[in-house]
Amino acid sequence: MSLLVVGTVAFDAIETPFGKTDKIVGGAATYIGLSASYFTNKINLVSVVGEDFPQEAIDMLKNHKINTSGLQIKKGEKTFFWSGKYHNDMNTRDTLATELNVLMNFNPIVPEDAKNCDFLMLGNLMPAIQRQVVEQMSKRPKLIVMDTMNFWMDSAMDELKKTIAMVDVLAINDAEARQLSGEYSLVKAAQKILEMGPKYLIIKKGEHGALLFNKQQVFFAPALPLEDVFDPTGAGDTFAGGFIGYLAQTEDISFENMKRAIIFGSAMASFCVEKFGTEKLIGLTQEQVDERVQEFIDLVQFDISLVS
Amino acid sequence: MSLLVVGTVAFDAIETPFGKTDKIVGGAATYIGLSASYFTNKINLVSVVGEDFPQEAIDMLKNHKINTSGLQIKKGEKTFFWSGKYHNDMNTRDTLATELNVLMNFNPIVPEDAKNCDFLMLGNLMPAIQRQVVEQMSKRPKLIVMDTMNFWMDSAMDELKKTIAMVDVLAINDAEARQLSGEYSLVKAAQKILEMGPKYLIIKKGEHGALLFNKQQVFFAPALPLEDVFDPTGAGDTFAGGFIGYLAQTEDISFENMKRAIIFGSAMASFCVEKFGTEKLIGLTQEQVDERVQEFIDLVQFDISLVS
Repeated sequence: MSLLVVGTVAFDAIETPFGKTDKIVGGAATYIGLSASYFTNKINLVSVVGEDFPQEAIDMLKNHKINTSGLQIKKGEKTFFWSGKYHNDMNTRDTLATELNVLMNFNPIVPEDAKNCDFLMLGNLMPAIQRQVVEQMSKRPKLIVMDTMNFWMDSAMDELKKTIAMVDVLAINDAEARQLSGEYSLVKAAQKILEMGPKYLIIKKGEHGALLFNKQQVFFAPALPLEDVFDPTGAGDTFAGGFIGYLAQTEDISFENMKRAIIFGSAMASFCVEKFGTEKLIGLTQEQVDERVQEFIDLVQFDISLVS
Repeated sequence: MSLLVVGTVAFDAIETPFGKTDKIVGGAATYIGLSASYFTNKINLVSVVGEDFPQEAIDMLKNHKINTSGLQIKKGEKTFFWSGKYHNDMNTRDTLATELNVLMNFNPIVPEDAKNCDFLMLGNLMPAIQRQVVEQMSKRPKLIVMDTMNFWMDSAMDELKKTIAMVDVLAINDAEARQLSGEYSLVKAAQKILEMGPKYLIIKKGEHGALLFNKQQVFFAPALPLEDVFDPTGAGDTFAGGFIGYLAQTEDISFENMKRAIIFGSAMASFCVEKFGTEKLIGLTQEQVDERVQEFIDLVQFDISLVS
């Protein structure tokens, strides 16, 4: 089924204990789209870049069967730029620079032929812009998944809550779940957030895995223990892309299938962190993806038969 | 099969965001023994307490089918005492007081009828004392599991490594695995530690679960997401007790069965943290344990059939 991805397409400059990059292509929608492309080839992108954005990067997205007709290219303007430096533990980072550039006046326009997409992924963006996209859809998508961040909780909580109330799945990290709910316990946080509108909540815990909640059930998937985490940038978006891509491919939004989607998302994220930026997400084979998913199966599956 | 548990029996005074206790009964061997008692009733305890240790606490251990003939009671001396205060996140704590008392000159004596135990659990203690216990065994146990802590890495690394080289399973937390190996990546840390002698390594990550490694395989079990963690004291020992208790019950030390043992250990630890001290570990029913294990099954099991 068709998937619409909305989010940033950006330049990133990244420094980790393993090295640093000049401006490389990043952005939430880039990671989401690339990751989802391993599951479906009906992906539409809505985003904005400046005149400085390289045609080769757009061609790379097209090679991954991503329809870029909704990618606005602003003449005389510059692409959104983020720069960050990771600490030694790779779990925390400092933002060195954020230049909004074309994002300052981003007015998302969903192309006509993308307005009836079945799956909608709202990557992290101003909540009001995420809402504008939902309102442009000609029919309610089968599933709307939304990412956001602490920045909007600090600066635009009312706007954010309006958008959260419109979506089916909210995907945020553990610190954000605590901030949004005011609860330290993630179980209590989930209960409160599921009262805000979403039917499902994904709490991403980075190297500590991810939790999927609905009001009755909870599922946990670990992150794969890796020898080296090279660059965590984009891992959460890659996870989300694999999650919604798998759901769009299988056309099944049951809790049981969402569990599988979480595993596929986790597998994609485990590739993402093995190289800088999007490098590892380009040109993977189906065999590589399946092998990685098998590693997750081996990692967590056990066989207990309770007598009672 | 029979199990010998060596470790501290102590008084603890605990402060958490939920409240504080006066001196209550604690100690590694207490938690290990209670937890293991849900799986086997052939448990021998080797430890030491002072004259101040209450007979009711010894009776409580006996009620859990723990043979306390190896528990030395030192006339005129005081029981080991530890006091600590947990921070709001419950993952970190300050030690407020450590009074070694009877531990200062502890000379462990394994009773004759416990020298041929099939399973040996070395709770956290001075590494030289752990080794003395191994040397008193009349035959090599089927499995020796050892816990330790960063204190011995700081103060007695050479002694510690001698003891580590004698055991089959080392169980330590993530920070300790990093310190012992000098590697930040837990995968690399495990590879190095498995070169030191043990065939298996368990890395305990508290609320983030536990990893089991041998040289070829890795298994991960999450901690149960709980509404409230009331008091984490003893959770690691309770985990270890459930782990070795289940192995002693099932008499199977294959990797597949160790996976199950990790789940049973995690289930026992999830009880431990729900009340202060050992309170929740006393008088659980088999139904309660099975129900909790079922929650773990529901939490992590998924069904993916890869085509390839």
